[in-house]
Amino acid sequence: MTKVEIRIELKKGVADPEGRNTQKTLESLGFTGISKVSTVKLFEIDMDMPAEQAKGVAEDMCRKLLANPVIQNYKISVS
Amino acid sequence: MTKVEIRIELKKGVADPEGRNTQKTLESLGFTGISKVSTVKLFEIDMDMPAEQAKGVAEDMCRKLLANPVIQNYKISVS
Repeated sequence: MTKVEIRIELKKGVADPEGRNTQKTLESLGFTGISKVSTVKLFEIDMDMPAEQAKGVAEDMCRKLLANPVIQNYKISVS
Repeated sequence: MTKVEIRIELKKGVADPEGRNTQKTLESLGFTGISKVSTVKLFEIDMDMPAEQAKGVAEDMCRKLLANPVIQNYKISVS
C-alpha cells in the first residue's frame, strides 16, 4: 500500500480570505507579530498500488478533480 | 521571520465526510485501488519572532482558535 500526500495551495496573488480572516481573528485575540496566514488543503490517499504508479494516478486525480488549475498549485509526495 | 506550519487532522475514529465523499467521487470517475482518503487542514503562518518563541505562540493559537481538541490533533513545525 502506498500513502500519497497531495498538497493543494493557492497560486501567488490569489486572494486567501480564509487565511486573512484567520489572521484578523488571531489579532483580535491579542496575538501580535503575524505577517501572513495562508491556508493549504491536504489530501492523504492510501492506494493499493506501487509507489511509481500511485504518483501518476495522483497526478491524474489532481487534474480531473482535486485541484483547480486556474487558482491552485499542487504538489504530490509519495511515501 | 519564522515560518510556522500547523497541521490539523482529525483524531482516529472521527468521521471525515469530506474525505469519504472525495473517495466516492474519485471512484465514480473511474479511479480504482483507493483504500482511504483523509483530509487535513494546514495553516502556514509567517511570524516576526525567533523560532523558539514562534513555536510556543503557535501552540497557544491552536489551543485558543485553530484546533478543536475534541475531534482534532495538531502538529506544529517551525522552519
